[in-house]
Amino acid sequence: MLSLDQIKEIAVPSEAKIILLIMDGLGGLPYPEIGKTELEAARTPNLDSLAKQGICGLSEPIAPGITPGSGPGHLAIFGYDPLVCSIGRGMLEALGIDFPLEEGDVAARGNFCTIDSDGLVTDRRAGRISTEEATVLCQQLAQIRLDGVEALVSPVEGHRFLLVLRGGNLDAHLSDSDPQQTGVPPKEVNAEKPEAGDTAALANRWIAQARETLHDSHPANMVLLRGFSQRPSFPGMSEVYGLNPVAIATYPMYRGVAKLIGMKVADAGHSIKDQFETLARLYDRHDFFFLHIKQTDSAGEDGDFQRKVGVIEDVDTLVPRLMELRPEVVAVTGDHSTPALLKSHSWHPVPFLLTAKYCRPDAVTQFSESACALGSLGIFPALGIMPLAMANALRLTKYGA
Amino acid sequence: MLSLDQIKEIAVPSEAKIILLIMDGLGGLPYPEIGKTELEAARTPNLDSLAKQGICGLSEPIAPGITPGSGPGHLAIFGYDPLVCSIGRGMLEALGIDFPLEEGDVAARGNFCTIDSDGLVTDRRAGRISTEEATVLCQQLAQIRLDGVEALVSPVEGHRFLLVLRGGNLDAHLSDSDPQQTGVPPKEVNAEKPEAGDTAALANRWIAQARETLHDSHPANMVLLRGFSQRPSFPGMSEVYGLNPVAIATYPMYRGVAKLIGMKVADAGHSIKDQFETLARLYDRHDFFFLHIKQTDSAGEDGDFQRKVGVIEDVDTLVPRLMELRPEVVAVTGDHSTPALLKSHSWHPVPFLLTAKYCRPDAVTQFSESACALGSLGIFPALGIMPLAMANALRLTKYGA
Repeated sequence: MLSLDQIKEIAVPSEAKIILLIMDGLGGLPYPEIGKTELEAARTPNLDSLAKQGICGLSEPIAPGITPGSGPGHLAIFGYDPLVCSIGRGMLEALGIDFPLEEGDVAARGNFCTIDSDGLVTDRRAGRISTEEATVLCQQLAQIRLDGVEALVSPVEGHRFLLVLRGGNLDAHLSDSDPQQTGVPPKEVNAEKPEAGDTAALANRWIAQARETLHDSHPANMVLLRGFSQRPSFPGMSEVYGLNPVAIATYPMYRGVAKLIGMKVADAGHSIKDQFETLARLYDRHDFFFLHIKQTDSAGEDGDFQRKVGVIEDVDTLVPRLMELRPEVVAVTGDHSTPALLKSHSWHPVPFLLTAKYCRPDAVTQFSESACALGSLGIFPALGIMPLAMANALRLTKYGA
Repeated sequence: MLSLDQIKEIAVPSEAKIILLIMDGLGGLPYPEIGKTELEAARTPNLDSLAKQGICGLSEPIAPGITPGSGPGHLAIFGYDPLVCSIGRGMLEALGIDFPLEEGDVAARGNFCTIDSDGLVTDRRAGRISTEEATVLCQQLAQIRLDGVEALVSPVEGHRFLLVLRGGNLDAHLSDSDPQQTGVPPKEVNAEKPEAGDTAALANRWIAQARETLHDSHPANMVLLRGFSQRPSFPGMSEVYGLNPVAIATYPMYRGVAKLIGMKVADAGHSIKDQFETLARLYDRHDFFFLHIKQTDSAGEDGDFQRKVGVIEDVDTLVPRLMELRPEVVAVTGDHSTPALLKSHSWHPVPFLLTAKYCRPDAVTQFSESACALGSLGIFPALGIMPLAMANALRLTKYGA
């Protein structure tokens, strides 16, 4: 694969538009009784028609056998090697709740936990307390004052919260306080670089005060922190590809990842239909459209095969809405598989189709795992998606003379 | 992929012969009226027969979506990773006109350009002056004398020329003088490494004298230089593969690239038939034959679908001439696609076939883009071609014990 710098060298200006339709967790597994995956069971005449006009394959998000998280899965799709461009756990947590980050903020993922009278961790999740309880505790923790920096605390879900340190000259090269096991005390936060010494001291002071604050609370009488991180500085998609991109996504995490790589983030409404209409409305103002459908993944995570089939069919009925805009390139895929059978993300490669005037159509006539496996793209790395889309938009010149 | 050093470790001596028939720009796109690519439209009973006996696939020259220049496309075919082994622009220009390079020469691609009375570039190509005009100006520039080094100037085509600095201890780590835009003055040439300081000074002195020489010429009253480079030192094919290779190519660029990796370059005549006869004549003297057919690419670049079909058919009729030599391995492919529809190199993967005694034939019975897409090799990197050919010649032993 070429580096982002090398891609930048060969990107050329163009008016051609690219739509990338991502159905999160699109790939599935055959349901035993019917022998078909969610996508195979769904009635998808419009996607099948695109598959017939276009080229198909299976996209490998990271590497064979590797199940991607949402961050790496999406970074790969946009051409940012997820093995190189990592987003820290704390930062992902902040993006996931649409936390208004500022330059220099250090974010950490927090857990409420339970410690015994000797200070040893007895439950790393404090009996999985409710979001409501955690919200009250977060308000108490938000009262903690540190010299020279702000310490912002936001509830996330259940026992999880977000800590953001802001101000001064912070450095996120810090070890976790979470020992990842019970029967031991929480760890000191250590600086992994000399420059992070002051930030480590601040974090430890905050933890000590949190312990006092929570002293009489039960079972959530302590906190564990991990994944201290700062906003990574990736080159933006405009800089790399010369595109003017917009994300049409309803979930904070994806909006956040899109912002990280310099996309505008649209006000996309709530329903899938809203999202397609938002795209149509913004069509003249951008040349790259990242349309992110979350519901496929949610249904898969819930193990709800039929609901996932239904979401795919809903999307299919809206596909003509995209095509009537006459974009030069349309690509449809997922960031990973989420088979209802596994109720989780999985490592299985993801059905992919791309249609464009000069794509050299292959023999595939259906958009499904089994059909895409026979497509002319074969199994190919997700990192190839952007170069393929850019090439088909005639937005790349040749490499070397 | 194994490195060249690793391949070298497992190469073993053998008498087996390999013929690599490269039809430049072989891959195409379906012509709208007939729905077939150039290769699919061509009558190719002999190539089809090889496809039937052999294994097929689609060769990906560099990476998905990336259109290769001729240099990178060929390096990949010979197993030299084009993202690692680069040939500078100036050096390619020199190879392209068969310039007799010497050890240590620094070559740069030159443009005649137009500057206004303030010294600002108004036309980077001097109104695209003719080769004839440029030839006269090159003769004037060839009079420029520098202390201790020669400055050789050769016309290339139109406004393009080649500058070669020779002698002394030259270093090509130099920035371009070409600002790549109009309305600004030409840039100073800067050393990108301290060792290149003297060469930068020489280049700037040459440019200053060129400006004086061209003062009264119009529109070509100045020069721009870019791509300063020296002959890269790649390990030769003999060293890596233990082969005694010969290139049968009529175009200087390909002869030049072949020389760079240590191939003998045959006197190949002019016609395609001459080239096949040259191969037969030299058959006893070598064990690796790079037979390069340029006319497929030229026809594609000209947008002449029918002529490309005709060239492919001409090559097909000569294929029996190769087979009667009974080579152990024959592989047929291109260095990239050049669809007549695009009139340029393209990113589409290239039909590939290989036939040999132990190749494990697949189900493909036709040599075409669509048939090769279903071949047992799938889409595979062009860097795999040499190892596959070597293996099928039983010229590679196992990797590791």
